[in-house]
Amino acid sequence: MAKPRISSIDGKLAEEFAVPSHVEEVKEKMAAFARHHVATGRRVVLITSGGTKVPLESRTVRFLDNFSSGRRGASSAEYFMDSGYAVIFLHRHRSLYPYARMFSNINMLDALKFSGGGGGGASSSNSGEVVVNQQALPNIAKALKRYQEVKEGELLLPIEFSTLSEYLHLLKAAAQALSTIGSKAMFYLAAAVSDFYIPASEMPEHKIQSSNGPLQLSLNMVPKILSPLVKDWAPQAFVISFKLETDATILLDKARRALDTYRHQAVVANVLDSRRGYVVVVTPETQAELIITEEDVKNDVEIEERIVSNLTSAHNKFITQ
Amino acid sequence: MAKPRISSIDGKLAEEFAVPSHVEEVKEKMAAFARHHVATGRRVVLITSGGTKVPLESRTVRFLDNFSSGRRGASSAEYFMDSGYAVIFLHRHRSLYPYARMFSNINMLDALKFSGGGGGGASSSNSGEVVVNQQALPNIAKALKRYQEVKEGELLLPIEFSTLSEYLHLLKAAAQALSTIGSKAMFYLAAAVSDFYIPASEMPEHKIQSSNGPLQLSLNMVPKILSPLVKDWAPQAFVISFKLETDATILLDKARRALDTYRHQAVVANVLDSRRGYVVVVTPETQAELIITEEDVKNDVEIEERIVSNLTSAHNKFITQ
Repeated sequence: MAKPRISSIDGKLAEEFAVPSHVEEVKEKMAAFARHHVATGRRVVLITSGGTKVPLESRTVRFLDNFSSGRRGASSAEYFMDSGYAVIFLHRHRSLYPYARMFSNINMLDALKFSGGGGGGASSSNSGEVVVNQQALPNIAKALKRYQEVKEGELLLPIEFSTLSEYLHLLKAAAQALSTIGSKAMFYLAAAVSDFYIPASEMPEHKIQSSNGPLQLSLNMVPKILSPLVKDWAPQAFVISFKLETDATILLDKARRALDTYRHQAVVANVLDSRRGYVVVVTPETQAELIITEEDVKNDVEIEERIVSNLTSAHNKFITQ
Repeated sequence: MAKPRISSIDGKLAEEFAVPSHVEEVKEKMAAFARHHVATGRRVVLITSGGTKVPLESRTVRFLDNFSSGRRGASSAEYFMDSGYAVIFLHRHRSLYPYARMFSNINMLDALKFSGGGGGGASSSNSGEVVVNQQALPNIAKALKRYQEVKEGELLLPIEFSTLSEYLHLLKAAAQALSTIGSKAMFYLAAAVSDFYIPASEMPEHKIQSSNGPLQLSLNMVPKILSPLVKDWAPQAFVISFKLETDATILLDKARRALDTYRHQAVVANVLDSRRGYVVVVTPETQAELIITEEDVKNDVEIEERIVSNLTSAHNKFITQ
């Protein structure tokens, strides 16, 4: 019964969303990454992170975007690796990146100096070393050390997307690549994905001219890819979706409805304004509030540590059931 | 005669585009910056850079954006400072920044190492210095030195915007602030500004629900701010606008029409696909093609050096006329 609907999503994907040329190569890479890590006893989480770009023109000058710095995905990746997972990090180009996210709010040049304390005179700039001012970046040594360990252990496989089309096709490829490791795969779908798009067939080639007057846009609804992901592409995996709303009163209802519709394992529900201090992890049977107190903030505790801890426990139970 | 039209743009700005709370403070800062540098014999260029964000909801989850990394504005700022200008850099939050732009395509953590060549063992991370690997970033010493000189000389005043509303109000404030230095001010309007917006009064507060079906958007045209800028706010300044098209056949015609309409000094015209290798600087009397050859690319010559050289010469003539 589900067949026609699902093949229609597959058909839509193929027809209306340009297939990235490297999708098969990426799929093979993800499959090899998953096989390797599962063979050495790890679990694998696919994290999606950042917003998707929806072009309004095929030679794109203008696009629709979704608010997302990629902060939640990048920090969660760190906690998953700390918990023994290997991470496929499917993220928006230039969104925040694990460990490197600490530089996101500073100009790196403000944190560098010439060694020997020189002010950067002509001679010191040519001979001296350029070093990080650890007063400006107090956590740099710790982050660099962990980054190098992760790189050496090949625990992180970064894959980039920019457009909604790239995101959809790469997520499908990831789901198919991870289907081989069954319940040891987790999908942590934190990306802010557009609900609307303009089909390639209805898109103008050239920049829309403002001399033509006000702009009327008509956007189609993006197919709900969670449905074939859960049912067909990776039916044994542990799947988490995210729900972000600005209106707190409709949030939990929407989370429950998503679980009813897609039959996956959990929804992380959050409200735009409070998302760094409060989330609810909703499962078919439970509802867990995770909270960051002022005390936690002082101690640099991030809510992603709690989210990841909650979900890795649940994944444990899911695997051993 | 021009009065009603102009005051209508001013009225529109006040009514339909939220005024940033810090606009008066920024205006005073820009005016002081300009006075100071003109007193010491410099000219001042206001560079706008990066794309503008157009929110679809007042608690913004979704927005329209314009393609722009801010590369042209950031590199031009460097060449203007090399040519003796002080620069007000009105740029999109997180867009490319002068000198720091060299890090934009790399993960900074890949270019850092622990001093002493250690691989980042526990001891070296706690005691050693973190240094830049100058093989990975060969130009870092030169860029850092120049960045420090510019900072010490206070040659660069960075001002950030994200939304179209912020951009419009801050540009107006800049024009008013620079009107006091007359023809010694240049406006180099390289930002990719949206032509369309949704007025605050027509914007939903909350995230648009996808369950309501396909999305119909109706966008108004953004008022042409170049008109009051040239005529009223900074009538003595040297003003350059940019024209980016994807269709080369309409480009020069559109550039000429802009000069006819707004009566400013020059348009830098470029096509999306070739913008790093070819631009045309169009003035009412002249038309100069600037080209970067393969030889230039090998020698790290950037087209912005040629653009800035062309325009500073023209500004010279403009002042002494």
